[in-house]
Amino acid sequence: MMTKRYSEDELISKLFSPIAGPEALGLADDAALMAVRDKPLVLTTDMLVAGVHFFAQDPPELIAKKALRVNLSDLAAKGAVPQGFLLSIALPMDWSNDWLESFARGLGEDAQDFAVPLLGGDTSSTSGPVAISITAIGTVETFVARRGARVGDGVYVSGPIGEAALGLWLRENPERLETLPLEARDSLLARYLLPRPRLDLIPLLTGAANAAMDISDGLVGDLAKLTRVSGVSAEVTISDIPLSLAALQLIALKPKLFELALTGGDDYEILFTAGADFSPPKGIWRIGSVTAGSNPPELRDGEGKSVFFKKNSYRHF
Amino acid sequence: MMTKRYSEDELISKLFSPIAGPEALGLADDAALMAVRDKPLVLTTDMLVAGVHFFAQDPPELIAKKALRVNLSDLAAKGAVPQGFLLSIALPMDWSNDWLESFARGLGEDAQDFAVPLLGGDTSSTSGPVAISITAIGTVETFVARRGARVGDGVYVSGPIGEAALGLWLRENPERLETLPLEARDSLLARYLLPRPRLDLIPLLTGAANAAMDISDGLVGDLAKLTRVSGVSAEVTISDIPLSLAALQLIALKPKLFELALTGGDDYEILFTAGADFSPPKGIWRIGSVTAGSNPPELRDGEGKSVFFKKNSYRHF
Repeated sequence: MMTKRYSEDELISKLFSPIAGPEALGLADDAALMAVRDKPLVLTTDMLVAGVHFFAQDPPELIAKKALRVNLSDLAAKGAVPQGFLLSIALPMDWSNDWLESFARGLGEDAQDFAVPLLGGDTSSTSGPVAISITAIGTVETFVARRGARVGDGVYVSGPIGEAALGLWLRENPERLETLPLEARDSLLARYLLPRPRLDLIPLLTGAANAAMDISDGLVGDLAKLTRVSGVSAEVTISDIPLSLAALQLIALKPKLFELALTGGDDYEILFTAGADFSPPKGIWRIGSVTAGSNPPELRDGEGKSVFFKKNSYRHF
Repeated sequence: MMTKRYSEDELISKLFSPIAGPEALGLADDAALMAVRDKPLVLTTDMLVAGVHFFAQDPPELIAKKALRVNLSDLAAKGAVPQGFLLSIALPMDWSNDWLESFARGLGEDAQDFAVPLLGGDTSSTSGPVAISITAIGTVETFVARRGARVGDGVYVSGPIGEAALGLWLRENPERLETLPLEARDSLLARYLLPRPRLDLIPLLTGAANAAMDISDGLVGDLAKLTRVSGVSAEVTISDIPLSLAALQLIALKPKLFELALTGGDDYEILFTAGADFSPPKGIWRIGSVTAGSNPPELRDGEGKSVFFKKNSYRHF
C-alpha cells in the first residue's frame, strides 16, 4: 500500500524550508524579500522537462542539481555571483515522498555547496511529465555580455566539448555501452547527468573576456549566436577544440559522432573571446579567432579545409 | 497542411522581444542585467499548468495574462511595485503559431498595461500539457509581511469573494449555465479566467496594513495561514464577507456553493489586517477581528453561531 504523501504544507516545511535563506521568510509568505544590493542584478531562468532535458527515471538528486546548475552556469558566464534562486515544480500524478525527498536532498546539497539559498517557489500537479523551472539571481561587478566580441579576439573554451552529448547518445544507444572502456562510459554518462557550472571562472571572465556565454546548445551553434549578436564572424580550427579521452574513445569507435560532440548540447563549459594580450591559463583552450563579417563561423580542419555540419545545435522546435 | 512553426529563434525575436525591456538585452544573452535598485527587492514565482490552473482550450491571451497577473497579485499583497518578470514555457507537441501569437499578444498587453517588462525566459517542449512559470520581481518601500497580524487588528478584504471559484464550478457544471442570468454567468466565468492584481492597493497596504496576503487558495484557508504565521487567531462574521450579485444569484440556486465561495481559490483579492485606528475606504470590507490564541480562525454566522467547513482551501495534493 502507498504511504500517505506529503501535503503541500508538509513538503514546503519539511523538504524545502531547510534549503531556504532568510530572504525566503520561511517560505511562509507570498514572496521573498531581498535587501538592496550595491551591485547590478543578473537574472536568468531555465525550465527542465522530463523526457526532454533528462530521463524521468534519472536519480532525483541529480535532476534537482542539473536544474539548479544550468541556471548557475548562465550566471557564471556573465561573471555574476549567485545570490539565490526560486523553484517551480509541477509534479506528475505518480510522484512519491521518496522521489521528492531525494530531489530536495540533491537541491539542498547544491544550494549549500554553491552558497545559493532557495528564495521562494511554487508546487503544482500536472497530468504530464515533471517540469522544473528555476530562476536564479546573481550580482555582478562587471557584466560579461554575449555581444562584446571584437575582430582580432581569440576564441576560447573552458574545457572539453561534447562529453554530455555523447553521454546522451549512449543513453539512447545502450547497445554501444559494451564497446567502451568502463571509465569512458562512466565519464560520458555522468557528464550528461550532472553539469558543472563554471563559477570558478568568474574572476577570469570579468577580468579578461570581451564576450562570453555558456555552451548549452552545442559549441558550433552557440558560437554562431555569439558572433551574430556581436556583429562579427570567426574562424575555428576544429583540431584545436579540446576533447576528453572518453569522448575520443567513443568517436574512434564511431567517427560520425565527432559532429555530435561539436554540435550537441549540455556542455556547460564557457565560450568566450578575449583580446590579443590575453594569455590563457591552464585549462583554457584557444580554438580560433574573431574575424570581420557577418557570416556564421567558419570551421576548418587541421589542413585549413572548410568543414560543414548538417545541424549546428540542439533545438526544441 | 500545417504551416511551418516558428523556430526557437523566431519565436523569441518575433513574439517575445517586443515585450522585453532594455534589461533583457534583446533576449539575446544568457541573462538579464538590472541596474542597482535603491529599494529592497521582492521576488515571487508561480507556475500554471493546463488542466490544473486553466483549461487547455481557454483563450491563450487570457492564459498568458492570468500567468502574469497571479504573480503581480503576490507583489501587490506585499506592497511591491512590479519591475519585471521572467517567463518559462513548456509547449505541448501540438502547439501552433496562432496559439503562441495570441499568448504573446496577451502577455504584451498586460506587460504594457502594468508597466512590467519581460526580462528573460526559456522555451521548452513537453509531452504533457502546457506549463507556464513566471517569476516576478518588484521593489518595495515598506514590505507588508504575512506574519504581522496583531491581536485587536481588524481583518479586511479588498473585494467580493468566491466569484472565480464559482466561475470554475460553472465550467465544470455547464448544465447549470442556463439557470443563471447572462450577466451573472459572464461575470463569474470572466473572473475565473482573468484575475485582477490589486496593484492599486499598494499605497493603502504599505500605509495601513500590519499583515497581508493575496487570496489565491480560498479566503478561509488563506486567513488560517495568515493567523498561523502571525501567531494569532481570528473571528470572522461570515455575513460580513462581501459577495457579488452574480455570486449571490448562483448561491441562491444552490446554497451549498456558499461554502465553495469562501473556500475556493483564485480570488486574487487582498486579505489584510490593520490596527483599530484604520478606517477602511470604499471598496474595503471589514470581515472580522484578530484575536489571541493559536486556533484556526473561528467563523460565525450573523447570530454568532460557529460555522464549520469540510475543506478550507484549494490544495494540489
